[in-house]
Amino acid sequence: MGRESATDEEILEAVDRALRKHGYAKLTMQDIADESSKSKSLLHYHFDTKEDLLVAFLDDLLDSYEQRLECRSTDPPGERLMEFLARFVFAPGDEDREAFHLALLEMRSQGAFNDRIRERLVRSDRLLRTTVIDILEDGIEEGVFEPVDPERTAALLVATLDGARTRQITLGEENDSYTRTVVEELLERVIEPILTEEADLPTIEETLDDPDRQG
Amino acid sequence: MGRESATDEEILEAVDRALRKHGYAKLTMQDIADESSKSKSLLHYHFDTKEDLLVAFLDDLLDSYEQRLECRSTDPPGERLMEFLARFVFAPGDEDREAFHLALLEMRSQGAFNDRIRERLVRSDRLLRTTVIDILEDGIEEGVFEPVDPERTAALLVATLDGARTRQITLGEENDSYTRTVVEELLERVIEPILTEEADLPTIEETLDDPDRQG
Repeated sequence: MGRESATDEEILEAVDRALRKHGYAKLTMQDIADESSKSKSLLHYHFDTKEDLLVAFLDDLLDSYEQRLECRSTDPPGERLMEFLARFVFAPGDEDREAFHLALLEMRSQGAFNDRIRERLVRSDRLLRTTVIDILEDGIEEGVFEPVDPERTAALLVATLDGARTRQITLGEENDSYTRTVVEELLERVIEPILTEEADLPTIEETLDDPDRQG
Repeated sequence: MGRESATDEEILEAVDRALRKHGYAKLTMQDIADESSKSKSLLHYHFDTKEDLLVAFLDDLLDSYEQRLECRSTDPPGERLMEFLARFVFAPGDEDREAFHLALLEMRSQGAFNDRIRERLVRSDRLLRTTVIDILEDGIEEGVFEPVDPERTAALLVATLDGARTRQITLGEENDSYTRTVVEELLERVIEPILTEEADLPTIEETLDDPDRQG
């Protein structure tokens, strides 16, 4: 669903705050109500169950991500690829973002047993992989990337970025540059070898420092 | 701790079964007692809290893994690397192993807030990365691998394998060859380019089909 009303929008923002604060496993409707100006019974009027609310939250998150991607689809493939990789680089000490991804990780581990949650996880995986596949296909067509298998390359990149993020957020301070290291290694080992002489990739530093970058 | 007594051993095996059945977030001492021949009060006699029990379980798991690695440390580096990669390939439909790794994933997402659990996660990460670093260092010394940076390469490999496994177990049936695809891509994109002419790596098929392989 899209954000159908200001009320829904406000409720979904409360879900976001409550997830960061309490995680997924122990989240209650009351926790969500506490983060919004609405009462618990009003929440129930809009969303029957906590699961409905979380499903709406995930749908909204995926819709926004999809829209953001569409805005970028005419940029050069090299820039889009670098932007995609840079999005996974986690600044050390970004506790708010860390809390959000820890809650998502809980949802992923428990969602395997819940068809409606799993459908959204599958949609999210498809969205990530399709994004990379589109970038690679465009780049191959424009002659900036070598003709690799886009699907298999996307599976590799998405798995690597996901694994690096999971490790950084679950292992604590001494691993606070895990995503950065892994993205740099991916660039050197996997991306650079598939660039043609026509390719013109911004550096990871330029991409991370770009003030127009949508985080 | 090691497996100090037959009772401890039996209890830790019950933890293993209970985790696969119930996951981590909702696991109770009663669930564990139900999987063993011991009463809940006897469990409490051996382990004060559920957390103590889970910490002992993780320590035991890590000890066993460490011992298994030591047995392999004299094999050729190429074989050890392939064995390490193959260990992450998840057979489609291996529900028991899937349940175990989903429980671990829950523990990882919630363990970030628990110092004792996080210490074990950090130990596990070090163990995995050190294993790869040792293999790479031995291989570089023996002239079978190019002189890459062992630490950064290990960070890349471990993140990639972890991410592939997480995606396979959380995304359901249509992704049941995620780990296999990603390991094949890793071999082609990351491992093959660092092999010297001296290197003699078994194939992934040979490694997965090896009846002596320790799963």
